[in-house]
Amino acid sequence: MKICVLPGDGIGPEIIDQTLRVLEAMRGDGVNFEAEFALVGGAAVDATGKPLPEATSRLADEADALLLGAVGGPKWDSYPRDQRPELGLLGIRKQLQLFANLRPAILYPELANASSLKPEIVAGLDILIVRELTGDIYFGQPRGIREENGERVGFNTMIYSESEIRRIGKVAFEAARKRGKKLCSVDKMNVLETTQLWRDVMIELSADYPDVELTHMLVDNAAMQLVRAPKQFDVMVTGNMFGDILSDEASMLTGSIGMLPSASLNAEGKGMYEPSHGSAPDIAGKNLANPLATMLSAAMMLRYSFNLEAQAARIENAVKKVLAAGYRTGDIYEPGTRRVGTKEMGDAVIAAL
Amino acid sequence: MKICVLPGDGIGPEIIDQTLRVLEAMRGDGVNFEAEFALVGGAAVDATGKPLPEATSRLADEADALLLGAVGGPKWDSYPRDQRPELGLLGIRKQLQLFANLRPAILYPELANASSLKPEIVAGLDILIVRELTGDIYFGQPRGIREENGERVGFNTMIYSESEIRRIGKVAFEAARKRGKKLCSVDKMNVLETTQLWRDVMIELSADYPDVELTHMLVDNAAMQLVRAPKQFDVMVTGNMFGDILSDEASMLTGSIGMLPSASLNAEGKGMYEPSHGSAPDIAGKNLANPLATMLSAAMMLRYSFNLEAQAARIENAVKKVLAAGYRTGDIYEPGTRRVGTKEMGDAVIAAL
Ligand SMILES: CC(C)[C@H](C(=O)O)[C@@H](O)C(=O)O
Ligand SMILES: CC(C)[C@H](C(=O)O)[C@@H](O)C(=O)O
Repeated sequence: MKICVLPGDGIGPEIIDQTLRVLEAMRGDGVNFEAEFALVGGAAVDATGKPLPEATSRLADEADALLLGAVGGPKWDSYPRDQRPELGLLGIRKQLQLFANLRPAILYPELANASSLKPEIVAGLDILIVRELTGDIYFGQPRGIREENGERVGFNTMIYSESEIRRIGKVAFEAARKRGKKLCSVDKMNVLETTQLWRDVMIELSADYPDVELTHMLVDNAAMQLVRAPKQFDVMVTGNMFGDILSDEASMLTGSIGMLPSASLNAEGKGMYEPSHGSAPDIAGKNLANPLATMLSAAMMLRYSFNLEAQAARIENAVKKVLAAGYRTGDIYEPGTRRVGTKEMGDAVIAAL
Repeated sequence: MKICVLPGDGIGPEIIDQTLRVLEAMRGDGVNFEAEFALVGGAAVDATGKPLPEATSRLADEADALLLGAVGGPKWDSYPRDQRPELGLLGIRKQLQLFANLRPAILYPELANASSLKPEIVAGLDILIVRELTGDIYFGQPRGIREENGERVGFNTMIYSESEIRRIGKVAFEAARKRGKKLCSVDKMNVLETTQLWRDVMIELSADYPDVELTHMLVDNAAMQLVRAPKQFDVMVTGNMFGDILSDEASMLTGSIGMLPSASLNAEGKGMYEPSHGSAPDIAGKNLANPLATMLSAAMMLRYSFNLEAQAARIENAVKKVLAAGYRTGDIYEPGTRRVGTKEMGDAVIAAL
């Protein structure tokens, strides 16, 4: 197993460090990997002037899976567009055709208080958002800012082909089949033709999945229903832009986004794995960051890219154990629990393995 | 004052009826209006085959303000695109250039329990969302579904000109100036050039409003922050598509979307006023709908289109009084309050005037 490790920016390096320690501790238990480090995001801009240097692209191509910390930070906010850290992330997604972004929003019972929602609304929450990740307005052409009638005009193109919709739809239906067998497809078909096609293709696909109940929801309503009654959802599938918004909204329902992993997969199961949270530059380098989402991302890596289900579960169970034992980083701390740093959380998970 | 009244579909007619009764009751107190009824949405499709018949367009042009119930319903979901009820709404917005959509999300203290969020998170919530309403991907060209390499491809165009951004920005800055003096502009500048221009123009504009604190937030983060800590916001300004999603999310934070009005204004202060909620076909015609959002929309109409501040406040105070007195329609009912129907709520508000 060749893993391309991309620590990235902010808290990225720290949470990646602890996650690699966890993987190290599992050597022998079928987890035999070789880690190759590469630069991406702001760190890459600083070192090479580019958010996605050729060396990183090459390593990404060669690796079997990628493990990413986080990218971005205020430092690079004012850089020219082609030097923005996010481009590194978007570049890898596109290069490897990581079209299927799986983002679970799970509420751990021990962390129920962290949610800003009432306990009865979120207790037991377990949603999987399947977001298309290589199409839509993120990559659509034409795009840019032009002069027209003496003023600037900004424009971007939302675009999806039938085959792009079908391949993400299949991933979502398959995922739903393995879970609660309910799939909600989110679109804005009453306004956007692109998403009318989206809905049509989802309906066509559903013929192959008679055991999965397909429903449709408009994106504005989905944003409301996530707040009102999130437990009505099992799996949600949507495009890149709507998925960006809804998956973050769904994560935040748990109040503990520091716990949520994600996977971005291509057609062959190769994937990039990263926490759902950002690079948190304000707490970077202070041993304060929560490494659990990154560890859970590594678990997803073992499951999806290396087919090591038992080993994935071993990490997930260790995380549950440390939560049950009361270990908490600052983001999920509450009185009566045991506040620890990034490194101590790593120690605790390794001990629990 | 010539008001074009558009009852629309579902519960539209009932809530409009009660609202007109309230306006009637204020005749003499400066509220001297002439109401002309017109068809829009599904009702118009049924009667004329078109969601926005010429007669309605003409009346909309002639009127000083428009009062709308709601449009849409499952009945028309399978109709061809040019016969969908929503087109009536979009058509009027575009025809009258109602570019400024004002959507308050206010939590009435009496209804705090209705929220799915914890009381301490939402108590006292008072956000104003300013959504651009006549541009963006809603109206951008080119758009459609074409054949390409033997498959269907759906496409839409996100587009904003500098002047479109500037005019909505001004509305938002002016609104913030009259409120808490904080304006948060929401974009996705790290991915979309259109919204890079959006951010640039907002920053340029801010020079004219030194008394207003301008901040920027990415749309995915905004969707999270609304859930995590909504009270950090005073006024938010964003484009048509993001505004559609975020304003619905923000409304739902209150748990009582049946209470929330909206105004859609053009440059001359002419406007269309409508509740933020939908047409609720499931309870239509049963005297169950909450007419308060429509009445509060009429209050906005008096304020923004007719400059009748005192009369607007009179309606708003009457609504507060009926809430304080315990009157509740089903959507906001809780044990210990007094459950009433649409018409009885109308009676109560008129009595409270
Ligand atoms: C950093 C940014 C480009 C990215 C996105 O919008 O996809 C992020 O928000 C995410 O969701 O992974
Ligand atoms: C009905 C629909 C076209 C409309 C929109 O998307 O603008 C509605 O959701 C709204 O927010 O007024």
